[in-house]
Amino acid sequence: MLTGRTVRDLLAAFASAEPTPGGGSAAALASSVGASLLIMVAALPKTRANSDEDRAALAAATASLTVLRERLTEAIDADTAAYDQVVAAYKLPKAADEEKAARAAAIQTALRAATDVPLGVMRWSAQALDTATAVGAHGHAAASSDVGVATALLRAGLEGARLNVAANLGGIKDEEYACAVSGEVERLAGGAR
Amino acid sequence: MLTGRTVRDLLAAFASAEPTPGGGSAAALASSVGASLLIMVAALPKTRANSDEDRAALAAATASLTVLRERLTEAIDADTAAYDQVVAAYKLPKAADEEKAARAAAIQTALRAATDVPLGVMRWSAQALDTATAVGAHGHAAASSDVGVATALLRAGLEGARLNVAANLGGIKDEEYACAVSGEVERLAGGAR
Repeated sequence: MLTGRTVRDLLAAFASAEPTPGGGSAAALASSVGASLLIMVAALPKTRANSDEDRAALAAATASLTVLRERLTEAIDADTAAYDQVVAAYKLPKAADEEKAARAAAIQTALRAATDVPLGVMRWSAQALDTATAVGAHGHAAASSDVGVATALLRAGLEGARLNVAANLGGIKDEEYACAVSGEVERLAGGAR
Repeated sequence: MLTGRTVRDLLAAFASAEPTPGGGSAAALASSVGASLLIMVAALPKTRANSDEDRAALAAATASLTVLRERLTEAIDADTAAYDQVVAAYKLPKAADEEKAARAAAIQTALRAATDVPLGVMRWSAQALDTATAVGAHGHAAASSDVGVATALLRAGLEGARLNVAANLGGIKDEEYACAVSGEVERLAGGAR
């Protein structure tokens, strides 16, 4: 599990020539950090106006962000696991016709899983970005730079996940699925600008 | 040391209401991951055209990125240490005039250190972004999404560091220093767009 390793170990793993972990896990990590910073700002003893309205808005944001952060953190490992399956599928034997068919099917299954993980990261990053507006409006003004950093990281995570969806989607032969994903990607990426 | 903790522990620390770690360390982490991904792409057995020119360009990029990545990783801990000093300086006694003067001086010293760390992160992120162009041009085409994720993370790290420089610079009374930093920040942020 990447998330159980130390930060230095994880950085070394990203820098190694091994195919995983790669950009997909890095994008999920960026968004996890962004969501975590928003939870921190919402948890500060002081709020924008120290009003009940502030506290209610921040409590709602925290409830949503806690779920999103957990999903994004799980995606750090899930993206690497899914891409390892893609690499494994491409290495299947392809001498006989039966082997060729089994390999092609395994590649399609693996590519779909490796698309679904960054697509989830896009969705959860977009939802976390929605809460960033509320956290910025109701959170302690002194923490506004933390909200700004969180927003930059969530946008980078969303964009990084988009690049990974696009990279895997190119190999998927199910046109209905590919078209549905493309449409959703466009909506999610457009909403984050 | 934050970098010696597990990824899950670090995320929990970002999410806690404690003043550190905050956005400054998060920005340094984002850029460290970005630099690591570029080192990975440059280390792949395949290059864009498998030419000597590719390998020479990627070797030069790796030499530069290895230094930048180490500095950015050290900044994850350095930013938290510097901001802890700011918090400690503000807590110094301020009853007598002598105490007031000592506290004010300690705050200025601490704010300057807490500005220099994210300013370094801006510089190193900008330098890593410069190498991203070479890694993208000479690295294996199949890894272009990793170069894209790295670029997004380095831009987010640079922008996050800029927000932290700005937050600390506001409290600094040395106008010559503040003016020099503002000028450099503008150049660095403008170059990354």
